[in-house]
Amino acid sequence: MDIINELMSYRERDIPYSRVLSSMCTVPHPVAVKAHEIFIETNLGDPGIFVGTIELEKKTIEMIGELLNNRNASGYICSGGTEANIQGIRAARNLKKVKDPNIVIPKSAHFSFEKIGDILGVEIRRAALNKDYTVSISDVDRLVDENTVALVGIAGTTELGQVDNIKELGKIAEENGVFLHVDAAFGGLVLPFLSRHIPFDFEIRGVSSITVDPHKMGMATIPAGGILFRDERFLRALEVETPYLTSKYQYTLTGTRPGTGVASTYAVLKHLGYDGMKEMVDGCIRNTRTLVEEMEVLGFEPVVEPLMNVVSFHAKNPEEIKEELYRRKWVISTIRNPKAIRMVIMPHVTEEVIGSFISDFRKIIS
Amino acid sequence: MDIINELMSYRERDIPYSRVLSSMCTVPHPVAVKAHEIFIETNLGDPGIFVGTIELEKKTIEMIGELLNNRNASGYICSGGTEANIQGIRAARNLKKVKDPNIVIPKSAHFSFEKIGDILGVEIRRAALNKDYTVSISDVDRLVDENTVALVGIAGTTELGQVDNIKELGKIAEENGVFLHVDAAFGGLVLPFLSRHIPFDFEIRGVSSITVDPHKMGMATIPAGGILFRDERFLRALEVETPYLTSKYQYTLTGTRPGTGVASTYAVLKHLGYDGMKEMVDGCIRNTRTLVEEMEVLGFEPVVEPLMNVVSFHAKNPEEIKEELYRRKWVISTIRNPKAIRMVIMPHVTEEVIGSFISDFRKIIS
Repeated sequence: MDIINELMSYRERDIPYSRVLSSMCTVPHPVAVKAHEIFIETNLGDPGIFVGTIELEKKTIEMIGELLNNRNASGYICSGGTEANIQGIRAARNLKKVKDPNIVIPKSAHFSFEKIGDILGVEIRRAALNKDYTVSISDVDRLVDENTVALVGIAGTTELGQVDNIKELGKIAEENGVFLHVDAAFGGLVLPFLSRHIPFDFEIRGVSSITVDPHKMGMATIPAGGILFRDERFLRALEVETPYLTSKYQYTLTGTRPGTGVASTYAVLKHLGYDGMKEMVDGCIRNTRTLVEEMEVLGFEPVVEPLMNVVSFHAKNPEEIKEELYRRKWVISTIRNPKAIRMVIMPHVTEEVIGSFISDFRKIIS
Repeated sequence: MDIINELMSYRERDIPYSRVLSSMCTVPHPVAVKAHEIFIETNLGDPGIFVGTIELEKKTIEMIGELLNNRNASGYICSGGTEANIQGIRAARNLKKVKDPNIVIPKSAHFSFEKIGDILGVEIRRAALNKDYTVSISDVDRLVDENTVALVGIAGTTELGQVDNIKELGKIAEENGVFLHVDAAFGGLVLPFLSRHIPFDFEIRGVSSITVDPHKMGMATIPAGGILFRDERFLRALEVETPYLTSKYQYTLTGTRPGTGVASTYAVLKHLGYDGMKEMVDGCIRNTRTLVEEMEVLGFEPVVEPLMNVVSFHAKNPEEIKEELYRRKWVISTIRNPKAIRMVIMPHVTEEVIGSFISDFRKIIS
């Protein structure tokens, strides 16, 4: 078919993942691709038709819930972190009905929270950061008032991979009777596999909902985001009636939604198991360390010692470095405060990729 | 791999499309599946990486724009009709900043508008319907006030496939200086191929945005919704800054988003062309007529003579019929007002499927 050749010519102009050190997405695991193909026709928006697929979603949520210390969590696989964060905040807003709702989020929160503020009509209050770029608990405390419907903590910030002190945020949330939403879109499938125990999930009593994206470190196919609530009550706050479907109510943001993300998420988690996931995460952390060592040799210091596989390095001219690398078909990103270049060491960023990257990087800075 | 067998056992419990007369989704076209597989790793949320895929999206939007009488329309391929409708209404709300915004929609509008009202904090005013179940223009006129940010017209209602008088809605929109969003999630890829010319798109001056879902009658893979705006100004009203991505701004609702919907949409439209699409639509309309004839023989009258391939039949006990059919693994749906059973004759509902359905239907009503 001619059309396939035409499509291939577009696809070939994309930069391959092996040149990408800026993305939190990665090449899906082969088992995820196989699972995806089996479920390509499915639509979870119509659960009376896709009875097997919806059952698989329940299993998948149970599996992720268990990993996040709450086997009874309620939730679903969605389009990604933005939908998950919208739904977390929307549930909070709908349950605590105030006239001018606000949420308190760290300055380090993902830019999509600006979108969420606009969409949901919720004021965004950004709390200052500590020296280690985690949120200042005292500043969060200062910003909370009677119109606050939720606090947000980040488990794996986009820029530095830092984890806020979720325990302390949980205390403030409980004291003030507000929702605590944890954005663990990235860290949710990293932290459970680290040797060091960093509390961030439902084991902390104050945590009401968690965003965790299998299409990031879960190596699932896009789209596969995840939103988990402590209990069903929160999902109920999102429901509308669905007169013509095989279900009576719908709590998802989208209507029609693919079962592929469920299948690919389940496939990877079940196929690799806890040990396989840990091995994958360990590999990324090891490669991150290698990258840091190599960059230090070249005179680039990390902004903070990376906790996971996201790292930023101080640089005087980050934009120039980024553009020069892009001309050589390497993609990294930059951060503004402090001025730095940023890299994410996903599973596709192998030792070999790092070697080749460093070799080109050396050329452009000399 | 064991996991694949396990997944298959879930998938096999789904009801196959050949037994489904309730869904506006269908078996994707084989060329859509091929296209999907080629783009399975792509993420349009990062256009500096997926430079070829984003170019393909531009082409796809241009192609759909042309079909909807505006080659210069701006827009994107999204998760589905709900996201598309959210974005249309959100742009309207953001451009006309009023304190207590409302939108006027037909009583026949899809249930997701309830969701949208909740999400965006917009009051939903439902206009009455005429005898033919299109929206009453005089009632729309009565409901518009200074806080109205948008009117909504439906081109292919979920229950009956009816098309509102978009021309008259356009006049009211222009007179009042409000946005007119057309929900053509279903009809957008049916109406352009009908012999009868039914105006519903950008040819009508008042129309500002259109929802059109390729994963419905476009036979694309899920997820492939579409939102098209008359011009770029509306997209700008949705933008947020994106500090760490390869783009500077993002107007989409989701962040990470698959390129598969773009590829599968483009593949089907280009592969079939105008004539192939018309042939497919003609086939569905023909099969709808067959179904109506067969149902009339059995004493079931259509609520309105179907304009496209959605039809509802008056029934005294629609819920019972639906449940009895479901027990025999047939899926139809019901509507409440008037009491009726509803069917959608998608491409997978072939003459053979209709024959087999009617034969079982006859048994359960006798």
